[in-house]
Amino acid sequence: MSTDISIDNMMQKALEIPGLLSLAAGFTDNHLAPREQVRRISNELLATEENLDILQYGLPIGRRGLRAAMAARLLQQDRALGAEPATIGVEETIITTGSQQAIFLAVQALCQPGDIVLVENPTYFVMLDVLRTLGVRAVALPSRDDTLDVEALPAFFDALRERGELARVRCVYLVSYFSNPSAKSLSFAQKSGLVDAMRDARLLVPVLEDIAYREFYFDEAWPAPSMLCLDSEEIPIIVTGTLTKLFSTGLKVGWLSVRHPAILRRLIDLKRCQDFGTSNFAQAICEQAVEQGILDEYLAWMRPRYKEKCHALHDGLVEAGLKDLGWSWELSTGSLYLWLVAPEGMATGPESELSRTCMDEKVIYVPGTLCCPGALSGRVRLSFGALNPEDLREAAARFARAARRVAQGEGVDA
Amino acid sequence: MSTDISIDNMMQKALEIPGLLSLAAGFTDNHLAPREQVRRISNELLATEENLDILQYGLPIGRRGLRAAMAARLLQQDRALGAEPATIGVEETIITTGSQQAIFLAVQALCQPGDIVLVENPTYFVMLDVLRTLGVRAVALPSRDDTLDVEALPAFFDALRERGELARVRCVYLVSYFSNPSAKSLSFAQKSGLVDAMRDARLLVPVLEDIAYREFYFDEAWPAPSMLCLDSEEIPIIVTGTLTKLFSTGLKVGWLSVRHPAILRRLIDLKRCQDFGTSNFAQAICEQAVEQGILDEYLAWMRPRYKEKCHALHDGLVEAGLKDLGWSWELSTGSLYLWLVAPEGMATGPESELSRTCMDEKVIYVPGTLCCPGALSGRVRLSFGALNPEDLREAAARFARAARRVAQGEGVDA
Repeated sequence: MSTDISIDNMMQKALEIPGLLSLAAGFTDNHLAPREQVRRISNELLATEENLDILQYGLPIGRRGLRAAMAARLLQQDRALGAEPATIGVEETIITTGSQQAIFLAVQALCQPGDIVLVENPTYFVMLDVLRTLGVRAVALPSRDDTLDVEALPAFFDALRERGELARVRCVYLVSYFSNPSAKSLSFAQKSGLVDAMRDARLLVPVLEDIAYREFYFDEAWPAPSMLCLDSEEIPIIVTGTLTKLFSTGLKVGWLSVRHPAILRRLIDLKRCQDFGTSNFAQAICEQAVEQGILDEYLAWMRPRYKEKCHALHDGLVEAGLKDLGWSWELSTGSLYLWLVAPEGMATGPESELSRTCMDEKVIYVPGTLCCPGALSGRVRLSFGALNPEDLREAAARFARAARRVAQGEGVDA
Repeated sequence: MSTDISIDNMMQKALEIPGLLSLAAGFTDNHLAPREQVRRISNELLATEENLDILQYGLPIGRRGLRAAMAARLLQQDRALGAEPATIGVEETIITTGSQQAIFLAVQALCQPGDIVLVENPTYFVMLDVLRTLGVRAVALPSRDDTLDVEALPAFFDALRERGELARVRCVYLVSYFSNPSAKSLSFAQKSGLVDAMRDARLLVPVLEDIAYREFYFDEAWPAPSMLCLDSEEIPIIVTGTLTKLFSTGLKVGWLSVRHPAILRRLIDLKRCQDFGTSNFAQAICEQAVEQGILDEYLAWMRPRYKEKCHALHDGLVEAGLKDLGWSWELSTGSLYLWLVAPEGMATGPESELSRTCMDEKVIYVPGTLCCPGALSGRVRLSFGALNPEDLREAAARFARAARRVAQGEGVDA
């Protein structure tokens, strides 16, 4: 995959073309950002003599209070679902510059060039970028209805073994709540089924569970606990989450927890060397937001607004007749995305007629191929994160118009 | 070097032992941090509707305004010295999470495990940690009086070639202004002499010039331009600097510039994958500080205060009679450090009698061995960054007391 179709490039395009509406970038809404909250917290932190340390280096692994808070929050959410997660503590939790850095650290800690990471199909396309950049191969887990197909795992692992590739697998990566890009979540049966199948296949490697969107639901939390209660020495669970999407992408504060001592040590070493710690000031702001309940208050306010945006895009597409053109999708209940399936045979890739016609209509999307390491075509990720409801309806109309032109043979030729 | 004597550990120790005075950590002074300036800028940025983007993701390579400002600042400083540096622009400059991330990115971009990076003796000990963690070997350049010995380079390169190691060298790393740890600076003759010797030896690899402390002088800038005017396709120059020490370590904003397109591309790819960009909010604060002249105003205020701290530590050591005990050092004219040479034969390492006796006296330092990949013993780095003048005098007295006890055979045995 060339870098020409990277997210960088899409972001650049969106900035450069006047009037273009971007359904591509996974941005949050600038107008819904907690500006006043961040301002208040910053002022409090900087006005008193109590917090003299916040413009100083922190520990490379992150602020103790924030690490404790994030670990406790994870356990609390799991326990609220009746699960009994392995106890994870402050010393097993690292603050990272977004969960982006967490997945990079994990890949770097676990893999050498030529190794394999198993990913869902579809998966978070930035993870595919990380793997490519580090020379690691992404191999798609079996999927059905664009989610993990647990029943197909034994045969899949057998085939990997026969190809001599099972021994090169170093990690399994899952985006388990309101996935980017599919907005689907994994059931607990899928998670435990995966671990059972791995054990049966003697594939004893860590699972990296990315729960970035766990709290980014509209009405209700997804009722499956994290994989922490499946943690074992044989198959260690690494959990990563983030406050970026939830609170402020501009603060870029994420975290990672793992109980396995050797993996933890390697991750801490890499984090220390990589940047000696995420901005202490940004961490301190997040710490206050979590501890003072400001985050929870903000989430309660923000969730219905993102739900409204989600519905605006969905309704816009329906009203513009996209379903009548043979497109299908589910209404998302969390995340920033709709995941669309094009009519049989319609290409959606970066060089497709649809892509060119969308550009002509001044709307852009993320081609599903960028998210799909395995065979899965005709997918489109639309983000309702950045635009307001009115612009989302307009963008939906443009997208549907482009889709109609392509269906009628009136799209933009190569 | 085990992680037990890492900077992490020293920082932990300093926190855990009541009454301990740390001359170890390279912290700045919490009481001199620009709290009011950061508060004012944060307020301005968050109060108006003009800067809606600051709590949003930025571009992975960093804010355009800040990149332009840092590149311009570098060129301006070089030109003020009469140099004609290669033009470096906004597209060749990447914002990083401190220069720490810049050196990590550079090593990762240029090296594979088993490769060699040539470093000064002494050098920035965190770089040695980075190299160790990434499986890269540090080999010491020849030094005299604890600075680069250019005359010895040809024989050194010959010896490397004879040992079959020259071909594994991927980069030369220099800390060229008010070095951490030695507080010494390189003359332009040393820099150009190095490049000439490399060319003669056909060692055509990049030089990574770390100018982190260039602006951290007390009275006058060091009169040598950066190596940018020595840049060539054969021996590309990568320059990295930072606003962390200069403005706020808690914001952790650094930068890196390089003109070589392939290296630049690789660095941008790695930066994008590593964290998708440094905290945009922290960057925006720094951008305003630079653009509004707040940084320059702050520097003018802060420099004499650090000079005072430097002198407090120096004077304290002199008055406690450390020179009479056979210790020698130069009074630093920039940076946060004094670099001491112990009397002939006195060990200063982490397991030495001096180290144990200092701990007994409740003062800690960075053993020179941590900074010296080559043969160079009996060195000590003392930092006057964190403590106030009064505490620095007390710490100096404790250090001298420990040194005296060791000299008199009354130190703490193993």
